[in-house]
Amino acid sequence: MRTVEWDEEHTCLRLIDQRRLPNEFSMLDCHTVQEVALAIEQMAVRGAPAIGVTAAFGLALAARQSNESDPERLLRHLETCAETLRRARPTAVNLDWGLKRVLLAVRNAAGDANDRRRVALSTALELAEKDVQTNRRMASIGAAIIDDGDTVIHHCNTGALAAVDWGTALGVIRMAHEQGKHVHVLVDETRPRLQGARLTAWELSQYGIPYDIIADGAAGYFLRSGKVQKVLFGADRVAANGDVANKIGTYPLALAASDNSVPVYAVVPFSTVDLGLEHGDLIPIEERDPQEVLNLEVNGEPVAPSTATARNPAFDVTPHHLLTAIITEYGIIPPPYKEKLAEIAMRLDE
Amino acid sequence: MRTVEWDEEHTCLRLIDQRRLPNEFSMLDCHTVQEVALAIEQMAVRGAPAIGVTAAFGLALAARQSNESDPERLLRHLETCAETLRRARPTAVNLDWGLKRVLLAVRNAAGDANDRRRVALSTALELAEKDVQTNRRMASIGAAIIDDGDTVIHHCNTGALAAVDWGTALGVIRMAHEQGKHVHVLVDETRPRLQGARLTAWELSQYGIPYDIIADGAAGYFLRSGKVQKVLFGADRVAANGDVANKIGTYPLALAASDNSVPVYAVVPFSTVDLGLEHGDLIPIEERDPQEVLNLEVNGEPVAPSTATARNPAFDVTPHHLLTAIITEYGIIPPPYKEKLAEIAMRLDE
Repeated sequence: MRTVEWDEEHTCLRLIDQRRLPNEFSMLDCHTVQEVALAIEQMAVRGAPAIGVTAAFGLALAARQSNESDPERLLRHLETCAETLRRARPTAVNLDWGLKRVLLAVRNAAGDANDRRRVALSTALELAEKDVQTNRRMASIGAAIIDDGDTVIHHCNTGALAAVDWGTALGVIRMAHEQGKHVHVLVDETRPRLQGARLTAWELSQYGIPYDIIADGAAGYFLRSGKVQKVLFGADRVAANGDVANKIGTYPLALAASDNSVPVYAVVPFSTVDLGLEHGDLIPIEERDPQEVLNLEVNGEPVAPSTATARNPAFDVTPHHLLTAIITEYGIIPPPYKEKLAEIAMRLDE
Repeated sequence: MRTVEWDEEHTCLRLIDQRRLPNEFSMLDCHTVQEVALAIEQMAVRGAPAIGVTAAFGLALAARQSNESDPERLLRHLETCAETLRRARPTAVNLDWGLKRVLLAVRNAAGDANDRRRVALSTALELAEKDVQTNRRMASIGAAIIDDGDTVIHHCNTGALAAVDWGTALGVIRMAHEQGKHVHVLVDETRPRLQGARLTAWELSQYGIPYDIIADGAAGYFLRSGKVQKVLFGADRVAANGDVANKIGTYPLALAASDNSVPVYAVVPFSTVDLGLEHGDLIPIEERDPQEVLNLEVNGEPVAPSTATARNPAFDVTPHHLLTAIITEYGIIPPPYKEKLAEIAMRLDE
């Protein structure tokens, strides 16, 4: 089962509803582009690669819903819908990337409005297929950095649930496991949305990979203990100089790893690289509903005072000098990132 | 109302039951030394200064409970009870310090068993009184480092609830507020026990000090933003070289502050300094029940898979070079800590 899947029979996008995991494995069917935008905003689907593909299908759905017979007006309608989808989450560049790919294909398509409808869907389907291939390839390339017996700290969820399948950092760990390497994962629970405790723990148990959940603040303790060999995470946007925006808490994790000479890897499809941004401080950081911080309960009782207020930035920026390498589908990239990322982009343009 | 208070009428120790806050303000009466040990272990009372005084009262209670008429056998009984209390929580040195003070006073007391009973209680009462004075003094001394308009990040709970009254780092913030300085506190929620979200938020609202709760992992984001002027926390044990054991998550917080040149202060009564330990890696670190990490709920549903496992170290060690100063009742101590801490200890011995 894929995290994001097109259902042709019912003309809808089927998503694994990640808000219900691990207690319930259920599907969310989106029949309109508005429903797709809401699913992204409310994080029924999350993870940079997954929301990129989901947004692409959102446009395909918008095209199918529309009765527009004029191909130019259909394009304009899709451009408006793309704006709605883009606003759903500002940090991950993959969302924008998925939208641009579909709009470009539609714009270049010959024929009438129905031809453009077909092109929108076929482009989204291609992106989904390519996502699986890309991530599988990254996993194979990245697995080389994992040694038999490694203990690895992993932040947030970067597995099959964060993509169409396989995922990024967790894909690397899964591939190493499938190659017969023994890996133990210390799973950052990843407050406030707890994607580690909810999703990564669930995925690891599916794969039979041993793990322990830890409070995010405990990563430093384990890194200082000398018993952790690698730190792995994904990213929502990589700037031209290699600075990485990822789930909140990544930056202090990378600092603690660096302070203890433990290698740090960001695992990202090249679509996550945004060469248009010179450095990480230019990446827009989403601040989400404070209730995500305040809505915790223990033994059925709320934790915070009822009058409490909170701040809830969803991402932070890890400066590139804290990374050992960036793992992409084009290989393991060591510093200097700026030159090497530009070089790959140039090769791809040729 | 004090966090820890002797009730002579009912011959019991009354504690604010911190497991019930902020939803319910209730008292826990301990009538036996076993009940006191359990209250410490289960964290009905917590915070290094508070558990030091609580343990001292535990011995006073043990003395009152015992029918022993031989003064030497009474002392031996108290020594056994001290072992039980000491085992309740291994990291905070204040616990050991409180026990040693009472045992020393009892050992030196002239007279019969009843005289020794009286001395045990009067020593515990003195320690409680001294704790309030010490913390108030630290707060006055420390308030000098807070500037009007500061935004401060604070970890765990170090307020009145962590001591008999006033507390350590939060006492400094409260004193600055009472002096009319405007302070905004970013409250680390402090997973896994959430003392920040539960207790510090509750205390700050009592004092009328504005705050926002943040996920522990978000501190790095705010420190990088340039909008935080100070980082403050307490400690459970300070080694001879100034390394500090404190609530898990303190070390990555101090790293992120240091990486952004934001000053970091540990606020501790001198009883927290353990000159017997050369450096922080010799401090015993308590690992608590994994359920404290796993028992979270959101919207009435468990977060982690039912089969999940966890690791739960309760403290980490922050190396002294990450601290700007250690604030004690004897003044604000800048580096080099080893020489200055030894100097104060020598003066106290004279």
